[in-house]
Amino acid sequence: MPNYSAEVDAVLRALADPTRRAIVERLSLAPAVVSELAAPFAMALPSVLQHLRVLEDARVITSSKQGRVRTVALRPGALDVLHLWLDQRRTPAEQRADRLGIHLTRTSPKET
Amino acid sequence: MPNYSAEVDAVLRALADPTRRAIVERLSLAPAVVSELAAPFAMALPSVLQHLRVLEDARVITSSKQGRVRTVALRPGALDVLHLWLDQRRTPAEQRADRLGIHLTRTSPKET
Repeated sequence: MPNYSAEVDAVLRALADPTRRAIVERLSLAPAVVSELAAPFAMALPSVLQHLRVLEDARVITSSKQGRVRTVALRPGALDVLHLWLDQRRTPAEQRADRLGIHLTRTSPKET
Repeated sequence: MPNYSAEVDAVLRALADPTRRAIVERLSLAPAVVSELAAPFAMALPSVLQHLRVLEDARVITSSKQGRVRTVALRPGALDVLHLWLDQRRTPAEQRADRLGIHLTRTSPKET
């Protein structure tokens, strides 16, 4: 990951806006065409397109065009960089608890 | 969690700034006093205090004062709300992969 810090920055800035977060929440269910995505928001289409551009620049979503219809999808693994950053933020006490959990899982009798 | 969406919003806005993210990265190693936290940043102390206030309002950090020294710490579980939000964003394909992984873990022969 050549530019990890810049990736984390782009994803967090993209998600810090509630409209963009709502778009990501919608797309985590299934891909959608732009008009469907815009429908729930009381905003002009150019504003929605601007939000989509920010999400696409942050590599959170991908889009493809067939004829006049643009379909938008959550990029698989798009949020992995944020998972990784969060995991690295676990405090020493939380990390000890994690290791204890792993140890107990490995040594406890197998479920039947 | 009475106001989950507002919590996610506050945490993401707090983390969308690189200075605040650097403070959180530092605090995930150990608590620190304010002067230590401010040292790596080429900014005036009031600006650092302003960033700390945003992090504290978002309940990402806690602070306590002994005499004239204020110590700041990452609040345990502060970022759980973001973990939860991210987990809910897994696409149906990723969720199927998760379930397959759980199934294989449960049914594979135990490590010796």
